[in-house]
Amino acid sequence: MSERNRTVPRVGMVGGGQLSRMTHQAGIALGVDFSVLASSPADSAALVCGDVSLGDDRGLDDVLAFAKAHDVVTFDHEHVPEPVLRAVEEAGGLLRPGRDALRFAQDKLRMRTRMAELGAPSPRWRAVTTLEHVTAFAGETGWPVVLKAARGGYDGKGVWVVGDADEARGVVDRAAAEEVPLLVEGKVDFSRELAVQVARSPHGQVAVYPVVETVQRGGICHEVIAPAPDLSEDKATHAQQLAIEIAQALDVTGVLAVELFETADGVVVNELAMRPHNSGHWSIEGARTSQFEQHLRAVLNLPLGSPRTNAPYTVMANLLGGEDPEVYRRYLHVMAKDPEVKVHFYGKDVRPGRKIGHVTVMGEDYRDLLARARDAAAYLRGDEQ
Amino acid sequence: MSERNRTVPRVGMVGGGQLSRMTHQAGIALGVDFSVLASSPADSAALVCGDVSLGDDRGLDDVLAFAKAHDVVTFDHEHVPEPVLRAVEEAGGLLRPGRDALRFAQDKLRMRTRMAELGAPSPRWRAVTTLEHVTAFAGETGWPVVLKAARGGYDGKGVWVVGDADEARGVVDRAAAEEVPLLVEGKVDFSRELAVQVARSPHGQVAVYPVVETVQRGGICHEVIAPAPDLSEDKATHAQQLAIEIAQALDVTGVLAVELFETADGVVVNELAMRPHNSGHWSIEGARTSQFEQHLRAVLNLPLGSPRTNAPYTVMANLLGGEDPEVYRRYLHVMAKDPEVKVHFYGKDVRPGRKIGHVTVMGEDYRDLLARARDAAAYLRGDEQ
Repeated sequence: MSERNRTVPRVGMVGGGQLSRMTHQAGIALGVDFSVLASSPADSAALVCGDVSLGDDRGLDDVLAFAKAHDVVTFDHEHVPEPVLRAVEEAGGLLRPGRDALRFAQDKLRMRTRMAELGAPSPRWRAVTTLEHVTAFAGETGWPVVLKAARGGYDGKGVWVVGDADEARGVVDRAAAEEVPLLVEGKVDFSRELAVQVARSPHGQVAVYPVVETVQRGGICHEVIAPAPDLSEDKATHAQQLAIEIAQALDVTGVLAVELFETADGVVVNELAMRPHNSGHWSIEGARTSQFEQHLRAVLNLPLGSPRTNAPYTVMANLLGGEDPEVYRRYLHVMAKDPEVKVHFYGKDVRPGRKIGHVTVMGEDYRDLLARARDAAAYLRGDEQ
Repeated sequence: MSERNRTVPRVGMVGGGQLSRMTHQAGIALGVDFSVLASSPADSAALVCGDVSLGDDRGLDDVLAFAKAHDVVTFDHEHVPEPVLRAVEEAGGLLRPGRDALRFAQDKLRMRTRMAELGAPSPRWRAVTTLEHVTAFAGETGWPVVLKAARGGYDGKGVWVVGDADEARGVVDRAAAEEVPLLVEGKVDFSRELAVQVARSPHGQVAVYPVVETVQRGGICHEVIAPAPDLSEDKATHAQQLAIEIAQALDVTGVLAVELFETADGVVVNELAMRPHNSGHWSIEGARTSQFEQHLRAVLNLPLGSPRTNAPYTVMANLLGGEDPEVYRRYLHVMAKDPEVKVHFYGKDVRPGRKIGHVTVMGEDYRDLLARARDAAAYLRGDEQ
């Protein structure tokens, strides 16, 4: 459908995943003209969006044509290569976040270098190209160490915790063969993982959400508790200020997610993402302004919305695919058991371990909410038959 | 886009207005396969929905074809003629609500007759075809009286408050000429107008929302306060029970909105609508389960969601078109002034007096919320320059 009200701006989102899908929901309320560049009509956002461009969401020709058709372009992932971003900006396309900001989300070496310049609390790290570099680093910090692909990675993986030189060798050899630049980081002795979302508009306005706890198992975020329980006010404020400083220093427009480790001494920056992020899905129900609406407001240079919470606690649990491909028929049980659980299904084909949706519950007692969210996600996955 | 996950049901909504648009938003989260039958690609829902059938949303051929392509069909309006509904059901189409329920929302004479059978509190009323019928009725109740078109109406109007026989004559003559059946009702001496939403599933489960106050000016709903302030618990419970009884007696599936007058003696049934309704828009932010999600859950025979409120009060104000066609550029001021206001714009062309969106605010003090919602709606309309 293409007969749009031309008094509203045309926003394009590159990538057809669930972040685009949920941004589309927010865009409907705002009445903006929202479309996605998707690589397949079966993409999560392409299934539901009224205006879909099909094409290569990392390729020059398609991204450039998409940018020309929109007033502002934003992203559901950070995989558009820098030369493509440069060409779009040189052709007059308006990217938010822009290329100069995005490169810090695209390249972990640049990110670490910039964090060091800013004095942001970081793990020890170093660029490495040989096994000798890794063992020398581990000689200083002790094993295990964390090897990370600066860009891309392979086999869908980009982070490897290695316990000794033999384990490191496999990663270093394969990275060298595939020309993937590596860095090594000291393993942070953390008590838990946290995240904080901040939105920043081109005008420079910022709005920061409460710091959340992200519960990870096997390197995958399983649950998010908003706000992070029992987090000292000092640490929470510091984490929020840190996120704001990073957003300002990197000239981010849109939502920036800062993933953090909590340690005995404070917080340490783990990763950055310059887009709505899994750790902010709780805000759809749990905050006055969801991260998706906030991202749109920021990239449109509209005044930002209130990040105030709607309940003492909101818990989100990711729905990972199980063996049963038919999630829908499981709604019956989950909805009957807990009428307050909010189900979000991304319309994706179910594959074991794939993020195919999430559930959210709001209330007073985060332990109760966590149990209910876990229970709903486990049932939808098919763990409890 | 048409490559859908075929393990989820296909829901079709007849009519491309804002109710379909907002139901689409709810359907995205549920991951159901939702599409609309719209009469124009510029229809509010057609602008944003990924799957749009264009056709006559009141005509036999198009509604029948649409029903055949979907597992269940529901409605954004009550204007599909009864013979069309009958033909669809006879062809095996699954309508929710069904024809037997819908006819009470389509015909005010049938509705009043049925309410009388149920003993539901109603105004005095009578079917009328001549001016003499009207003056005889007014002789019993006193002027003014309310003339209503039982079906349809003309010039977009269906309700006329007439103060004497001369005023009544114009309505009666024109209705006779256009073959519009009329009824007359005694003007109810009410203190305010209320509404209550109840959802009912084919399984027979019901979920009822708090009773709300609808603030009308010039026959148009301007604001809704949820829940209705200072409503006695007795009256609130009675109104909710009444809505449940009506939904059960009429075998409604989906959301039923019951509009009520509050009088010194209790409540009186004014109108029924068997679909999401303007008086329930507050629930998008204000309740755990919005009326749109609830409607989908009900027509899909899923367990209903919790109607629990998310704040002590939620106020919704309708955004009516003003002289300025460009509402979007007014966002800047409204969002900057009140970061908690939620703006919903339906993507419609702006015409004076047309409902083109709404705003919602949640909080503790309904007077404050009402002032803020009115202020935002007035500014978006262009009243305050």
